[in-house]
Amino acid sequence: MAFTTEMQPGVCAQAPQETRGFVFNHTMLRVKDPAASLDFYSRVLGMRLLRKLDFPEMKFSLYFLAHLDGDAEVPEQPSARNAFVFSQRGVLELTHNWGTESDPEFRYHDGNAQPQGFGHICISVPDLDAAIRWFDQNQVPYVKRPEQGKMRDVAFIKDVDGYWIEIVEPARTGNLGS
Amino acid sequence: MAFTTEMQPGVCAQAPQETRGFVFNHTMLRVKDPAASLDFYSRVLGMRLLRKLDFPEMKFSLYFLAHLDGDAEVPEQPSARNAFVFSQRGVLELTHNWGTESDPEFRYHDGNAQPQGFGHICISVPDLDAAIRWFDQNQVPYVKRPEQGKMRDVAFIKDVDGYWIEIVEPARTGNLGS
Repeated sequence: MAFTTEMQPGVCAQAPQETRGFVFNHTMLRVKDPAASLDFYSRVLGMRLLRKLDFPEMKFSLYFLAHLDGDAEVPEQPSARNAFVFSQRGVLELTHNWGTESDPEFRYHDGNAQPQGFGHICISVPDLDAAIRWFDQNQVPYVKRPEQGKMRDVAFIKDVDGYWIEIVEPARTGNLGS
Repeated sequence: MAFTTEMQPGVCAQAPQETRGFVFNHTMLRVKDPAASLDFYSRVLGMRLLRKLDFPEMKFSLYFLAHLDGDAEVPEQPSARNAFVFSQRGVLELTHNWGTESDPEFRYHDGNAQPQGFGHICISVPDLDAAIRWFDQNQVPYVKRPEQGKMRDVAFIKDVDGYWIEIVEPARTGNLGS
């Protein structure tokens, strides 16, 4: 790879041999109501549902979604499908603990209120202005619209559980940070 | 794409035109001590540090890491580098709010203790047994070793802030769930 590793305390410049083939596959978020989340992630954010796994004894289900390349071939056979899903980058896993959807008081924690930890996921889009029009058309709530605050090329929307989702256009990230 | 979308309530079978080119780019976790986190993610998990962005007025820094394909060409020029980073899948963004590393009492919330929300990230590995030997060699703490509990082909380790990281071998996920 023809780039200079930025030397920061702690950074190992050359990935150890033992980590060859490691892939950051997915991020898991718990969701209250899978029908609402699947509508949001498959329609508003354009992800494909690749797999659903049910664990009836433990009363939960897992939904795996991703933005696939147009020419990706997804195996039909269930165990091959699992192997495919766990080999990808950029998968979102939604965990549904059965019954939360019918409890009107039930809420998950977004990680940005106290106590803090996880912050957000980020979707990059080819055209930020067009994406904002699409989100407005779908009444998506914002943490921060692009025109609010200092960072005019970054938006944060909220998913149906209130998790934050950063929206950026790669070509407009050039002057972020220093 | 030659596969049957699993029909679940809420699923939009065909991604709307307006979402074309959307990419799940990154997941952001806050970290207490970047030197410790960078050692963990770059050495133990083999990720490359692609970019550091500093925001001195707001006293925080962002670190972007990913597992790149061996032949990936990463631009040197800073704004082209940003555009590259925000175009990838499977990027991990670590946020460091300056000063937390020197506060002995400071801890982030892992999302699995109450209040729950975010659950974990997942790294898939080509050989689960070899990965476990590597983690043991590095004294990585476990939430669940593969031999504990029912799921013998799944492990959960903890990063230096206590965030959970699932470890799976795609070829051994065939009988997960139903």
